[in-house]
Amino acid sequence: MAAAAYKMISIPEAQDVVLSHTRPLGAVTVGLAGALGRVLAEEVRAPDSLPPFPASIKDGYAVVAADGAGEFPVVGESRAGHLDQLPVAPGSVAYITTGAPVPLGADAVIQVEDTEKLPDGEGGQCRVRICKAARAGQDIRPVGSDIMEGDTVLQAGERVGVAEVGILATVGAVSLRVHATPRVAVLSTGDEVVDPATAPLGPGQIRDANRAMLLAAAAKAGAEVADMGVARDTVGHLEGCLAAAIEQRVDVLITSGGVSMGDRDLIKPLLAREGTIHFGRVRMKPGKPLTFATLTLPQQGGRQMLVFGLPGNPVSSFVCFHLVVLPALRKMGGWAAPELRRVAARLAVDIKLDPERPEYHRCTLQWGPPPPGSAPALKAAVAEAAAAQVGAARCAEDPLHAPPAAAHEAAAHGAAADLGAQELWAVSTGNQISSRLLSARSANAVLEIPCAAGVLKAGSLVSALLIDDLGGMPVPAGGVPVTPGF
Amino acid sequence: MAAAAYKMISIPEAQDVVLSHTRPLGAVTVGLAGALGRVLAEEVRAPDSLPPFPASIKDGYAVVAADGAGEFPVVGESRAGHLDQLPVAPGSVAYITTGAPVPLGADAVIQVEDTEKLPDGEGGQCRVRICKAARAGQDIRPVGSDIMEGDTVLQAGERVGVAEVGILATVGAVSLRVHATPRVAVLSTGDEVVDPATAPLGPGQIRDANRAMLLAAAAKAGAEVADMGVARDTVGHLEGCLAAAIEQRVDVLITSGGVSMGDRDLIKPLLAREGTIHFGRVRMKPGKPLTFATLTLPQQGGRQMLVFGLPGNPVSSFVCFHLVVLPALRKMGGWAAPELRRVAARLAVDIKLDPERPEYHRCTLQWGPPPPGSAPALKAAVAEAAAAQVGAARCAEDPLHAPPAAAHEAAAHGAAADLGAQELWAVSTGNQISSRLLSARSANAVLEIPCAAGVLKAGSLVSALLIDDLGGMPVPAGGVPVTPGF
Ligand SMILES: [Mg+2]
Ligand SMILES: [Mg+2]
Repeated sequence: MAAAAYKMISIPEAQDVVLSHTRPLGAVTVGLAGALGRVLAEEVRAPDSLPPFPASIKDGYAVVAADGAGEFPVVGESRAGHLDQLPVAPGSVAYITTGAPVPLGADAVIQVEDTEKLPDGEGGQCRVRICKAARAGQDIRPVGSDIMEGDTVLQAGERVGVAEVGILATVGAVSLRVHATPRVAVLSTGDEVVDPATAPLGPGQIRDANRAMLLAAAAKAGAEVADMGVARDTVGHLEGCLAAAIEQRVDVLITSGGVSMGDRDLIKPLLAREGTIHFGRVRMKPGKPLTFATLTLPQQGGRQMLVFGLPGNPVSSFVCFHLVVLPALRKMGGWAAPELRRVAARLAVDIKLDPERPEYHRCTLQWGPPPPGSAPALKAAVAEAAAAQVGAARCAEDPLHAPPAAAHEAAAHGAAADLGAQELWAVSTGNQISSRLLSARSANAVLEIPCAAGVLKAGSLVSALLIDDLGGMPVPAGGVPVTPGF
Repeated sequence: MAAAAYKMISIPEAQDVVLSHTRPLGAVTVGLAGALGRVLAEEVRAPDSLPPFPASIKDGYAVVAADGAGEFPVVGESRAGHLDQLPVAPGSVAYITTGAPVPLGADAVIQVEDTEKLPDGEGGQCRVRICKAARAGQDIRPVGSDIMEGDTVLQAGERVGVAEVGILATVGAVSLRVHATPRVAVLSTGDEVVDPATAPLGPGQIRDANRAMLLAAAAKAGAEVADMGVARDTVGHLEGCLAAAIEQRVDVLITSGGVSMGDRDLIKPLLAREGTIHFGRVRMKPGKPLTFATLTLPQQGGRQMLVFGLPGNPVSSFVCFHLVVLPALRKMGGWAAPELRRVAARLAVDIKLDPERPEYHRCTLQWGPPPPGSAPALKAAVAEAAAAQVGAARCAEDPLHAPPAAAHEAAAHGAAADLGAQELWAVSTGNQISSRLLSARSANAVLEIPCAAGVLKAGSLVSALLIDDLGGMPVPAGGVPVTPGF
């Protein structure tokens, strides 16, 4: 089938097709140290309660609440990890530390700040003044108040982040069933493509940007990666590289180049012979010749391998990886919602529309006032909108504009409006030609720009797909304001 | 100095103190495969131009633009990576593939879709019909149009993400000077604290959640980590553990526990003896006893080591790590702006305020309409606000509300308003008691909640500090709307 014969589909259609051919990988066992970033394949339950005993929340004295304030003998102590405490009878107290078991008989803890050490009594008996009466239960965590024995603390399908590692350790889950991580091979193609270490370049040569970039992208997505090198533009060499990827039992092969209209673009014919091409053209800028195929491998028990034929232009490769490969890798790794996350952002500058294809425009999202370099009209408009909001906040009693109890004063001085006047801005990375990889530099999102004539004006709201952590986004001069009253 | 004697400071003050004692680490050399996530210690320049030759943007024919449309002999070919092309004289064309050098004499490329293959001419000469005239320069990338020889493609201080790896490969930067990653040791303390594998628990024991969690947190921040185990609550054992961390030449020691008011809370006295404590109490909930010290080590050339004494409660530990340790690790790793990123979000439910300390309330940020479980009044209020915005969008011609050229129709039907009506919501993780690590489960931000009486109402805007990637945030049912017209 000629390249042009492939039906042109949209990116949402392409994403659906890819995910419909993708299955979560089976479960493997990992230890706690290997759990970060993995997705649980089984729920995790608590084998015991936390705290396992009534535990003090403070350093101080375990008391009988009914005794009230006064002077008492200190008949024992309960330190975290030590069990030498005596029962506490009415009229006596025990020293206790944070996290230590509350001795039998005691029903409250008085923090040390509300006590006073007294001179020892007869026979060297320690004594203390309790300055405030306690209510029963005060500063005690009852058994199971954080986690009850048998509770499900984490669900199957949850991703293990930093806090989840702590939760797993708490309940003694040191051996975990998690989804396997996908094995991904990356192959560049092209007779003109040479290793990045090549210098100086020979005539007609360019360095291979895609392979290192896609290996990094797959590794960042949690995959185990295999570098398959660069394939020459011959049927034989390409077939050999494909066979090598199959031999390595990878779940996914990502190629770049060789999918457009040239007579040495051999990827589509190869995939059509060896497997099934599900799409070979996508209505998008950049990335039109994006190709997706599945191979069924009888020599490996009939297992299926996914092949993504990305375009050779590095930006097309970058965008196609994030839009269609990344969700597939996430689904394989067990993510219940593998799709890219979408937010709305305001354009900082005009964007020229493309009348032929919808564009995935690389941008840097940042929170704050209109960023430096924004269209000049924006600052005035934003200031006006903020002023209107101050007015609203002053009169309205509706829940959307209620300032915090302690912050009426701040709100009246405009602090609340400041917080509301800041928002998510989309700053274009500049010239979007698909060979210019600098247009992906610092990009943390791609904007979904409609296919139309004319210009999308600065200040328009557009949808953006997150492709990188916003934890490193640019910070506006002067920072972002805090909650009023904070 | 007694624990209570430490001056209580605020978190912004604590962050300033920590960063003022933190220096970016020196440069080390890494290869391209080890560059992801590192911060460049030197700028990177291009040794040659990209493209290094005038390159075709399409598969098709290299032509002399002045020849216009018509039938032409194909006198040669220029394939990417091959140099067998002849010069193209007026009245002739050459076959060319994407990325290949444009032959001498040709000044435009006609894409294959705008051509038609003709029967061979006399002597087997290939012939082609050019259906459209070209303008000079058409579909050619001039030398250096993406990158000019000598251009700085990445600055010192830039973090290497996926795209940057590709950019580095493009310019042949296969050996890079980047900031070293911090070496971080993690030590738990407490006689009651036992290894996570312990089952069943003995009387008075709890499992060590902090060590695994903090090791994961430091590793996620890019640090090289060392597990120092659990210290008993004795001066001798603690001193031994500190000496071991020094011996391992770590840049940072993170301890948890042993910093509150009990008589076995030995961390502060130890650090006061061995180094300088810069703060020992912080006005925050959770995390009040957070301690920070520096040790100058004459036995190691006078180098400095940072010590963070985190509270033993796992949530306090989690919050303190992100608020004060993480920015320090980032600064050591070379981040120019190491602080946590702040955004504004709308509260989904009422939050009870703490009258004594500002609270860092764990939450899950998500984009969309009011999330399930929001205060009932919110949905109505949001719907009303959206209706008002539709009105505004219909009349206004100001840049903040201009719908895209091709999307007037969609906007009139409310699609633009849909996009504008969605925003960032803060969903509380529930009971915030500092022993309950489940309150950090799925948290991707901490809210800055003022210290005050009463309640902060659902719908209030609050500032939030990002502590995890939003790329995995919850997706609203039905998804987030796209740019109108997309
Ligand atoms: Mg090629
Ligand atoms: Mg302790």
